[in-house]
Amino acid sequence: MYDQITVMAKELYEKSVALRRDLHRHPETGWLEMRTSAVIAGILTNLGYEVLTGRQVVDDRARMGLPSEEARREHTKLVRESWDTPLTYLTEEMEAGYTGVIGILRCGQGPVCALRFDIDALGVLEDENACHRPAREDFASRCSGVMHACGHDGHTAIGLGVAEVLMNLREHLHGTVKLIFQPAEEGVRGARAIVSKGHLDDVDYFVGTHLAPLDGPDDGAVTPATYGSLATTKYDVIYRGAPAHAGGFPEKGRNALLAAACAAMGLAAIPRHSEGASRVNVGTLHAGTGRNVIPDYAKMEIELRGETTEINEYMAENARRVCEAAAAMYGCTCEMICMGAADSHHSDLTLADRAAAVIERELPDIRVSSVRCARNWGSEDISLMMNRVQSHGGQAICMRNITAMEAPQHTADFDFDEKVLEEGIRVFSAIAYDLLRDEPLHG
Amino acid sequence: MYDQITVMAKELYEKSVALRRDLHRHPETGWLEMRTSAVIAGILTNLGYEVLTGRQVVDDRARMGLPSEEARREHTKLVRESWDTPLTYLTEEMEAGYTGVIGILRCGQGPVCALRFDIDALGVLEDENACHRPAREDFASRCSGVMHACGHDGHTAIGLGVAEVLMNLREHLHGTVKLIFQPAEEGVRGARAIVSKGHLDDVDYFVGTHLAPLDGPDDGAVTPATYGSLATTKYDVIYRGAPAHAGGFPEKGRNALLAAACAAMGLAAIPRHSEGASRVNVGTLHAGTGRNVIPDYAKMEIELRGETTEINEYMAENARRVCEAAAAMYGCTCEMICMGAADSHHSDLTLADRAAAVIERELPDIRVSSVRCARNWGSEDISLMMNRVQSHGGQAICMRNITAMEAPQHTADFDFDEKVLEEGIRVFSAIAYDLLRDEPLHG
Amino acid sequence: MYDQITVMAKELYEKSVALRRDLHRHPETGWLEMRTSAVIAGILTNLGYEVLTGRQVVDDRARMGLPSEEARREHTKLVRESWDTPLTYLTEEMEAGYTGVIGILRCGQGPVCALRFDIDALGVLEDENACHRPAREDFASRCSGVMHACGHDGHTAIGLGVAEVLMNLREHLHGTVKLIFQPAEEGVRGARAIVSKGHLDDVDYFVGTHLAPLDGPDDGAVTPATYGSLATTKYDVIYRGAPAHAGGFPEKGRNALLAAACAAMGLAAIPRHSEGASRVNVGTLHAGTGRNVIPDYAKMEIELRGETTEINEYMAENARRVCEAAAAMYGCTCEMICMGAADSHHSDLTLADRAAAVIERELPDIRVSSVRCARNWGSEDISLMMNRVQSHGGQAICMRNITAMEAPQHTADFDFDEKVLEEGIRVFSAIAYDLLRDEPLHG
Amino acid sequence: MYDQITVMAKELYEKSVALRRDLHRHPETGWLEMRTSAVIAGILTNLGYEVLTGRQVVDDRARMGLPSEEARREHTKLVRESWDTPLTYLTEEMEAGYTGVIGILRCGQGPVCALRFDIDALGVLEDENACHRPAREDFASRCSGVMHACGHDGHTAIGLGVAEVLMNLREHLHGTVKLIFQPAEEGVRGARAIVSKGHLDDVDYFVGTHLAPLDGPDDGAVTPATYGSLATTKYDVIYRGAPAHAGGFPEKGRNALLAAACAAMGLAAIPRHSEGASRVNVGTLHAGTGRNVIPDYAKMEIELRGETTEINEYMAENARRVCEAAAAMYGCTCEMICMGAADSHHSDLTLADRAAAVIERELPDIRVSSVRCARNWGSEDISLMMNRVQSHGGQAICMRNITAMEAPQHTADFDFDEKVLEEGIRVFSAIAYDLLRDEPLHG
Repeated sequence: MYDQITVMAKELYEKSVALRRDLHRHPETGWLEMRTSAVIAGILTNLGYEVLTGRQVVDDRARMGLPSEEARREHTKLVRESWDTPLTYLTEEMEAGYTGVIGILRCGQGPVCALRFDIDALGVLEDENACHRPAREDFASRCSGVMHACGHDGHTAIGLGVAEVLMNLREHLHGTVKLIFQPAEEGVRGARAIVSKGHLDDVDYFVGTHLAPLDGPDDGAVTPATYGSLATTKYDVIYRGAPAHAGGFPEKGRNALLAAACAAMGLAAIPRHSEGASRVNVGTLHAGTGRNVIPDYAKMEIELRGETTEINEYMAENARRVCEAAAAMYGCTCEMICMGAADSHHSDLTLADRAAAVIERELPDIRVSSVRCARNWGSEDISLMMNRVQSHGGQAICMRNITAMEAPQHTADFDFDEKVLEEGIRVFSAIAYDLLRDEPLHG
Repeated sequence: MYDQITVMAKELYEKSVALRRDLHRHPETGWLEMRTSAVIAGILTNLGYEVLTGRQVVDDRARMGLPSEEARREHTKLVRESWDTPLTYLTEEMEAGYTGVIGILRCGQGPVCALRFDIDALGVLEDENACHRPAREDFASRCSGVMHACGHDGHTAIGLGVAEVLMNLREHLHGTVKLIFQPAEEGVRGARAIVSKGHLDDVDYFVGTHLAPLDGPDDGAVTPATYGSLATTKYDVIYRGAPAHAGGFPEKGRNALLAAACAAMGLAAIPRHSEGASRVNVGTLHAGTGRNVIPDYAKMEIELRGETTEINEYMAENARRVCEAAAAMYGCTCEMICMGAADSHHSDLTLADRAAAVIERELPDIRVSSVRCARNWGSEDISLMMNRVQSHGGQAICMRNITAMEAPQHTADFDFDEKVLEEGIRVFSAIAYDLLRDEPLHG
Repeated sequence: MYDQITVMAKELYEKSVALRRDLHRHPETGWLEMRTSAVIAGILTNLGYEVLTGRQVVDDRARMGLPSEEARREHTKLVRESWDTPLTYLTEEMEAGYTGVIGILRCGQGPVCALRFDIDALGVLEDENACHRPAREDFASRCSGVMHACGHDGHTAIGLGVAEVLMNLREHLHGTVKLIFQPAEEGVRGARAIVSKGHLDDVDYFVGTHLAPLDGPDDGAVTPATYGSLATTKYDVIYRGAPAHAGGFPEKGRNALLAAACAAMGLAAIPRHSEGASRVNVGTLHAGTGRNVIPDYAKMEIELRGETTEINEYMAENARRVCEAAAAMYGCTCEMICMGAADSHHSDLTLADRAAAVIERELPDIRVSSVRCARNWGSEDISLMMNRVQSHGGQAICMRNITAMEAPQHTADFDFDEKVLEEGIRVFSAIAYDLLRDEPLHG
Repeated sequence: MYDQITVMAKELYEKSVALRRDLHRHPETGWLEMRTSAVIAGILTNLGYEVLTGRQVVDDRARMGLPSEEARREHTKLVRESWDTPLTYLTEEMEAGYTGVIGILRCGQGPVCALRFDIDALGVLEDENACHRPAREDFASRCSGVMHACGHDGHTAIGLGVAEVLMNLREHLHGTVKLIFQPAEEGVRGARAIVSKGHLDDVDYFVGTHLAPLDGPDDGAVTPATYGSLATTKYDVIYRGAPAHAGGFPEKGRNALLAAACAAMGLAAIPRHSEGASRVNVGTLHAGTGRNVIPDYAKMEIELRGETTEINEYMAENARRVCEAAAAMYGCTCEMICMGAADSHHSDLTLADRAAAVIERELPDIRVSSVRCARNWGSEDISLMMNRVQSHGGQAICMRNITAMEAPQHTADFDFDEKVLEEGIRVFSAIAYDLLRDEPLHG
């Protein structure tokens, strides 16, 4: 059966490349993945999946870091009027910012196996020079200032390829396949809204991945597990005070700028934690309108991190106290909006070993990294999904699909070797087949 | 009658000097004026006054800036064991820190006329050199580090001289004389406790004074009125947090030192007030016990001032908010103890003119300042008494009795020309007689 | 002769109104008064004045608060391509931002009498509603977001009317008339560049004005003198540090945002000055580019003020020290650009009395305010010119021409009663004639 | 020979206990170890060692954290007049605060082996209750508020026992023994002064120890090596400004309290380091003299730490910049006095293995911990000595001699099981013998 997977993936390769390039051409940032969601929903529907979209996928109140109404309206117009969007599958809810798609394939009794692919792009201006392949081969971004610079177009193409392979294998599967196409991973804003909706509550096995560059000469093509990304919480902090003429009535102002400045200093002074690394940053501060007016408005974008979820929570708790006290000190009000959150995560080594064994045994041309479980120093909201799965006894891994990259992720010249699409389809399909081919787990 | 006053004052002069020197020898700081109160109570009693002491004079809960229990006990011992104190008049309440005396002389129907004299000394180490007259003539302080360096010994001696004069004139008076001997004026701590007890509520005329140096060649001996001293509020601010080993568990501390530091900066940043001068000072800050321990205790001594009572209240209100918010920011608690308070004051010009007229007419050898109502830039808690009197329609003035001084007030070499004692007795007695000699005010 | 002035002013009235409305239609903010300068230069030239423009008027290096290159280019385009600009008089230097015009009329030996009129508009969006007369009568701003909301269009129209009257009277004048049309008064940015060029160095009499609203029922039409505007210094403060990934390498950043926050708090804490009012404001703070990057850039717009020039200099000196130390604390660099400056000023009462006398005697229908010299609580860079004139023995006054106003100055609905144009022309002309009609001052 | 060591240690036991108790009775804090130095010098001299004391041992300018002159004078008096001090060996330099002793035993060609013992006590008030053995058995501190609460009395007694054993074995040794009795280890103040004098420059083998409590049921009696104590730098930071009357002339002050407060906040905000743990603490802050005076003096006691010497240096460098900038911000001066310093350290595993092997082979009744090299989370200035030895190719270990303790170190009830004295003598002697028994290292 693994040979069949390999054959199918090979046959899908050109379609996958075309799909990836179509997505690359139409990049959409978090909560604006309208066309992307429509494309995914269309393909899954045509394949025969049970398809969830809009509010079925994401919990309204758990969405974080939403774009502005203007941005949403403008992007809707672009999607409707300028791009070739499969309008049949574009729903009003998608246009309202309820993006993301889940495809479900039910194959009788057996475990639930969820595969997760993130789908959003970044606010990066793509290189238009001919030395950049997407420009040369005409699949560069058609939305200036937005770019698939992290490889989520590849993730999505792999996910849709896996969808086709598993549908073909459905007769041989026992249990349920859930393909989760997650919006708004950048800024760790989207996972919570899917978790909050309960989609991970019945999952027995969970597999995610991220494209990653080769990290040394004897690295493999697949690292079956990662652990330890920094837990993080991101807030927008808004201070509102009262304006006053700075020369005429200084005592009548409520100085939001000073409240923010005081908070910035207090945040930097949150004590270090003895149990591991912590981080805090006030990335931006914008306050005031005129030189001679006591500023009545200030906004900060801040983020906290911790080597463990506990340390991050310690930082976030202190940050909330500091921000509110700074408001009180200057007679202002303080509003804190959570714009993103991720936990620290760990992969289950049992599942990682099982995945590694399948690859080594059945896909011997794909090399598994010698480091089975690699340290991750970034932040990833897949952690929220993994932790939910693990909290009720399920197993979860976050892999790395390693491939040559033209430039670092998040830069204007980023591009990757597309053969990883075929490899990725094989790896995910093989693991899922391995997990679901047996007789039912419970009974 | 005014001639009689002049004669009596002259006869009292030597006794007044002796009394002042006795007081100078036995200086007592605020709320420790035990011997001083006993001396005053003895004299007034012997003169025939109705005498109030202890809790009859001061309201327990309105006393501010109390000394420590140790200081009180130590001083009690000094007063009982080392000094020649008139023990007959030393009450337990005086020893418990309820100092201050009020002498009342009731002369039938008529207005109530209160005269106020403050009685406390300062924490100044007196010069022991022979060029300093009190040392040379053996009336220097017998309590090291405490000194009558502001002239309140003189105020008290004047007050007791006036007591004798008015008792002699009692047949000619209509109404009530209240002689208020106030404790704890330094640090503006004592007046509130007397006001709070209601002693000013029935006062029609109120006269106070302060010895003052000559301020120019054509200045007089008496300035009948002053106005405008800065209103002030004084707080001790105490932060309590939690200690922790700074190397081992920095996250477990609640840093009281940083709370105080943050408060100090926030206090300095209280916006200026457009309607007049304001002031703020963190005079002292003491925090922490060891280099490697997160400080769990910090204490600040702060003061606010304002050109008007309103501006001072604006400052105090902001200070309270800042100090509490700083505690919140660092997870500490904040206790603010009011250690002193004074309002801005103004003298009633009608009463000032009446006083000036009496002096010019009846005591022509005493020159009245050409500036009838002088600006005062310090802070004085007589303001609390004056404002209470004025709030129900009474009239109040705070005079200056001007005299040559050896050195500025509040310094180790301070001394004054004692002829001001005789002058002061004459001025106060003449004014009081003028106010009470008429038929009853109401009917 | 004064009657002739009155007659001429009356005849000029309609032209003045038309001119004022033309200027109101084409408002230009500081250093962009290109068309305004061309209009003034054209009129003065046609009247026969010796006309200085561009770098003859303003000292390149003393110009403060210049607009951006883009703003300048964009406005040039507007002036050249969209507006009816008298291109004959539009010079390259005007287009390069060297705005302002001086017209000189030499009438032989005698004193130099300078009259000053400021010409710039404000960044205010004019009300387009019909209840706003400029909109109703079609002379509202044709440049969205820019408006003559402070009356400088009126000042300019008065100045050009005076130019015509004095040219007509030239046979009767002895000495020199200097009509100074100053750019960039808003933000107190322009006067220094004219003073620095030496134009005030030979001035014996200096007269300026500002339109002002009626301030009480018995106010007059002209207040001959003002004093005391708050001296001020305005800085842009720019911090540059080094960026770093906030999660990955916090120790590698140089945090410009924290430097600015620290400076903001330090600035607010500059001690109050015992000799008079002081002010400080950080009006705006903008820092950072992304939530997860240590901010390497921050910009603040700040202003200092003082009741006297000395207090302002005390504030500015402290501000410089604080801003630089804050940079040092966070390892950043600090650049402070002076964007505006004004001193406190006082009018010469002798000249004020002389002006008042002329008005009362010769223009009896124009009422002079009973307060001859009014307190001014704002900031005005005419102070720099007055102080320069006074520093070498000349006399200077800053008047108020009082008129009914529809709404407060600096608001979208501002408009004024244009009869003040005729009055203003009469007052300035009469004063100038009075000052120059005599035989030469020196000899 | 090892059996002889065991026998000798057994014979020395009672003397060691007596010596330890004599030292415990006469505890002396850093740089005041006058009597302790005299005792050590006397014993070493009598044993026949070449003895260095005073400035021969410590470099004047490298001594850190000196006590005040008063404290030194007072302690000298105690030592001379109240205690039974071996005056023969008490030198003037010891009395001047040049404490510490080095004993040298030269045994021909061979390696140099240095053993280090620290000798100072702590500012802890010893428990006087009978449940505390030193009180019960009459060897509690005879200097109130000072106590050997960390076991350095034990270290010293072990060192002097080793001195006797090695002297007895001298015929069998090849090379040089250096016994370093270091003052002022508490506060990491003393090692630098010995290193700076060059005493570690020729050392081939270096062995130190610290008494430590049992850390688990299967822990041994000796841990042969430790690593990783936090590098640290300790500063006293003194701000000097200018006083002013806070009400009268706020602008004339230079506020040292605010400079310190600003520094405290800036210190807390030093960015975290990505390569490991860092620490910062302002342990104490004392500023100001009176509520109504602008504070002109402030003092902070601060400490920095880092998981590596590099991280600590990063912290210290930032701290210096912050403290100086805070002074500049408030127009004050800043003096920073280094009061203590230690590096991070690592033990040489080769030497640790050799030591472990000797113990296991030759002293089989003494159990070696299973963890050969234990993590140390405190700070120890033995690191400075070890790093110096290692910098020229020598090997160094810092052991732990584990023993039962009555209470945690640094507390009033601390006491330890004295059988560790005998064990310690055996372990040190055996290791030294093993290192020096061979033929010369170089030829």
